[in-house]
Amino acid sequence: MNTQTLILIQCHDAVGLVAIISNVLADHQLNIVAMREFVDEINNKFFVRIACTGELNDSEALHKALTARLPQNSQITVNPNQNKRLVILVTKEHHCLADILVRQYFRTMQAEVVAVIGNYDNLQEFTEKFDLPFHYISHDGKDKEKFEEELADVLQTYDADYIILAKFMRILSSTFVAKFKGKLINIHHSFLPAFIGANPYKQAHHRGVKIIGATAHFVTNDLDEGPIIVQNTKSIDHSYDVQKMRTAGKEIEKAVLSRAIQLLSEDRIILHGNRTIVFK
Amino acid sequence: MNTQTLILIQCHDAVGLVAIISNVLADHQLNIVAMREFVDEINNKFFVRIACTGELNDSEALHKALTARLPQNSQITVNPNQNKRLVILVTKEHHCLADILVRQYFRTMQAEVVAVIGNYDNLQEFTEKFDLPFHYISHDGKDKEKFEEELADVLQTYDADYIILAKFMRILSSTFVAKFKGKLINIHHSFLPAFIGANPYKQAHHRGVKIIGATAHFVTNDLDEGPIIVQNTKSIDHSYDVQKMRTAGKEIEKAVLSRAIQLLSEDRIILHGNRTIVFK
Amino acid sequence: MNTQTLILIQCHDAVGLVAIISNVLADHQLNIVAMREFVDEINNKFFVRIACTGELNDSEALHKALTARLPQNSQITVNPNQNKRLVILVTKEHHCLADILVRQYFRTMQAEVVAVIGNYDNLQEFTEKFDLPFHYISHDGKDKEKFEEELADVLQTYDADYIILAKFMRILSSTFVAKFKGKLINIHHSFLPAFIGANPYKQAHHRGVKIIGATAHFVTNDLDEGPIIVQNTKSIDHSYDVQKMRTAGKEIEKAVLSRAIQLLSEDRIILHGNRTIVFK
Amino acid sequence: MNTQTLILIQCHDAVGLVAIISNVLADHQLNIVAMREFVDEINNKFFVRIACTGELNDSEALHKALTARLPQNSQITVNPNQNKRLVILVTKEHHCLADILVRQYFRTMQAEVVAVIGNYDNLQEFTEKFDLPFHYISHDGKDKEKFEEELADVLQTYDADYIILAKFMRILSSTFVAKFKGKLINIHHSFLPAFIGANPYKQAHHRGVKIIGATAHFVTNDLDEGPIIVQNTKSIDHSYDVQKMRTAGKEIEKAVLSRAIQLLSEDRIILHGNRTIVFK
Repeated sequence: MNTQTLILIQCHDAVGLVAIISNVLADHQLNIVAMREFVDEINNKFFVRIACTGELNDSEALHKALTARLPQNSQITVNPNQNKRLVILVTKEHHCLADILVRQYFRTMQAEVVAVIGNYDNLQEFTEKFDLPFHYISHDGKDKEKFEEELADVLQTYDADYIILAKFMRILSSTFVAKFKGKLINIHHSFLPAFIGANPYKQAHHRGVKIIGATAHFVTNDLDEGPIIVQNTKSIDHSYDVQKMRTAGKEIEKAVLSRAIQLLSEDRIILHGNRTIVFK
Repeated sequence: MNTQTLILIQCHDAVGLVAIISNVLADHQLNIVAMREFVDEINNKFFVRIACTGELNDSEALHKALTARLPQNSQITVNPNQNKRLVILVTKEHHCLADILVRQYFRTMQAEVVAVIGNYDNLQEFTEKFDLPFHYISHDGKDKEKFEEELADVLQTYDADYIILAKFMRILSSTFVAKFKGKLINIHHSFLPAFIGANPYKQAHHRGVKIIGATAHFVTNDLDEGPIIVQNTKSIDHSYDVQKMRTAGKEIEKAVLSRAIQLLSEDRIILHGNRTIVFK
Repeated sequence: MNTQTLILIQCHDAVGLVAIISNVLADHQLNIVAMREFVDEINNKFFVRIACTGELNDSEALHKALTARLPQNSQITVNPNQNKRLVILVTKEHHCLADILVRQYFRTMQAEVVAVIGNYDNLQEFTEKFDLPFHYISHDGKDKEKFEEELADVLQTYDADYIILAKFMRILSSTFVAKFKGKLINIHHSFLPAFIGANPYKQAHHRGVKIIGATAHFVTNDLDEGPIIVQNTKSIDHSYDVQKMRTAGKEIEKAVLSRAIQLLSEDRIILHGNRTIVFK
Repeated sequence: MNTQTLILIQCHDAVGLVAIISNVLADHQLNIVAMREFVDEINNKFFVRIACTGELNDSEALHKALTARLPQNSQITVNPNQNKRLVILVTKEHHCLADILVRQYFRTMQAEVVAVIGNYDNLQEFTEKFDLPFHYISHDGKDKEKFEEELADVLQTYDADYIILAKFMRILSSTFVAKFKGKLINIHHSFLPAFIGANPYKQAHHRGVKIIGATAHFVTNDLDEGPIIVQNTKSIDHSYDVQKMRTAGKEIEKAVLSRAIQLLSEDRIILHGNRTIVFK
């Protein structure tokens, strides 16, 4: 395999951007092998993800050359960290965690799980089978501020690229979310229609929904309302009771979350306001 | 093909119901070829759909025999009308109507379209190609009461089993809904999450949803909240603008609505509170 | 809406191709709004589809400028015909034809149906409802050569961009296929596994397949073996008899064929040996 | 939870079978809560799966009562083993095994994995993390007969209900298959169309297939041709190289195989000639 150089750019749209970028790349003897771009014509924004082959000796020089020729305030990334560090946060449910740890064990993700944190300890034994540190940080008897402080302390020792809420069932404060802005990824069940309030599965069952789904998304202050990364659904029928719906939901949740991690690890997701550009 | 007898029953659950029912059928020389049942254990309700072969001379006698042996207040239907009469209500969009009219023309539905009513006249010419009456009932300059009175007058001349709102964009009053209880079927777009208020496609685009869907449902007083019959979804991505989302949505809407009509025509849907039992 | 210029290129891969192309476009004051490229690294081939905004006065000059700077034997198309002419070939089944004619009637395709040809006449009345010419060319009592000669004669009067075999059930000779190379599009049912020989639905039923599908593809001399454009599948179960499998298959066939026509009409399909590049 | 009694019956079809069966159940104070039946009208065969609540003291007596009243040669099972014993056979790929072992560890299957056998030892360490025996039986330097003899010896010590070929890449002899008739379950990739011979992924890539899938099936003497249990598919596009196709294929394979195990464990699969009845 050739070495690949990956370049991500977002900036104001203008005539000739692709020419500018591709000229700079050609000047550096880089050959574009995959290029995905998107122009948001309403907001006049340009997004591109470029994979190149060819030897890049000085990625800083390339960054400078691009910066010099692209519009002001362009966001340019040359060769982002190719092995993202993940910390997984869990509560009691194992399905998403297990799917991720198996991938970690067999090194089939481009990312690396560096630690697991649980507000219960029931997934500790399982995690440690995979020779990974498990931090048990109970929320019990603590106010949210104290609990999140402990969480943040541990998180900061790991310098994670992404913090995966793999069925982590505590609502995080806006202070905490702000501290890890753009790094928090959540998975949650989804229905058509959505059900607000307690026990959505029970509500969905009562309503007789024929589809259940899951959504992986960035966490923002609006709970379950951050930019969507991946969604998927599955057909069900009247014979699904609440328990069977939950079980089916878990299968989708783990698949959707692992897919989101894959896309994030390969730098295929660009945040754009309250939505994402996904360069599959 | 043999003649088939179709029997639908819903009643309080009790030990031995299947034995009772199947004994009565055997007494009438009917052979069960397909039987789907469901017990709602929470509400203690029993539902069954039975298709039999064998000659049934006196369906009234069978009905009596079943009534005599089943719990009080059982709902028993023997050989429901096998060629449901449909009236289609439209506004301006053609996609659902056209799909239904093609099926009608080539007789691939078990049901029969007997008329189309539009609150605009732009689908009149298309409808009449298929030798079907089109009633243009404008809502323009009328209050809802007057408009619905005209609608109801025409509807009543057709004695429809189901009234299909095939992208009919007027909100119906609770009086009107009550008058045609259990007969009104609607199709509407669905997202994960749902978007309330004006222009849901625009909201969904702004949010960057990765799935769009459609729901066919019975109409009740809660707008878009009646018992769900069929749902389906399709994956989309950031490259879908509002217009492309609408176009993709139409493809799902027409497929979901036609599927719902098929299930209703074959008496595979049983209403159960705010949900449906679907014996596919 | 702005005028759009569409450019399709395939050529040998080389360093700097995107730079070359985008420079030429910038020289012509064209702004790239959507660009999809693919490099086949095994065969060293480069494919790109570019949509630009900006006024293009002289598309021939642009073509020349690109030709001058790209590798020898590059295939370059500037602004392909934006309203493809389609001729539809049918036998007796209506489902694909009807779906296409409805789209034609309401002008929701970018393409235009200019005629329908049937080797039976049973779809003539339906076609003519849509004010389209129907040519009845029976194969009865003719050898294949004579039949295809008549077919070709009618086809050539229409100068079609694509000839859609919408359940056309005659096997075409290699001479005929060669004459309309790259223009013949077929739809056929697909199973996992495939079944060769007579009555594949019966074989599939006997085997108890749980998935049925459809494939739209270019026609080449290997029957049902040309480059695939679109495929889709649907889950079925043991309760599907042969007839019900066929009915379900038709729903997929019509959706898959219409999707293929849409992609072809928007110039999103590039033939590449025995496969296709699909720039969705 | 109530105790449930499960009854599976297949026999020649006849008038009144459901009456006979449900009478016998009512006589034993059993209440039918779920009943799925299927009549193969072509082969005149009747299949039923019945779940009852109520206390069953003497399942042998129930079996006798059913046998006495049903047609000769009926196959009747009362309360099949509710915790199926599984032995998993692997070669080198981990994806299916890992998915099963996680379910085993958290007891989310109704079945129990009792051992893993590999013809390579690279999955031994992983298996043993879950406190399960791993038997390394190399095929190396042995003829098929010797290898299969060793395999059979180990298998027989475990008295497995099902032997799951979780990407076990050795072709089994007809003698071996006959010895474990109805117990061997395989998973394999599936394409539309199918590709015969070496390296099907390479062939599928060369052909540009747009769908990949997986099939879980019983093993019979015709390789990859036994009765199908579960199938599923996923859309891909031209950007998938052979490696990426394989990776995507693995995700489907593990989901399909786990679903097949679930259906088998819950006694929802009935073998019927070369197909299966699946009472979901």
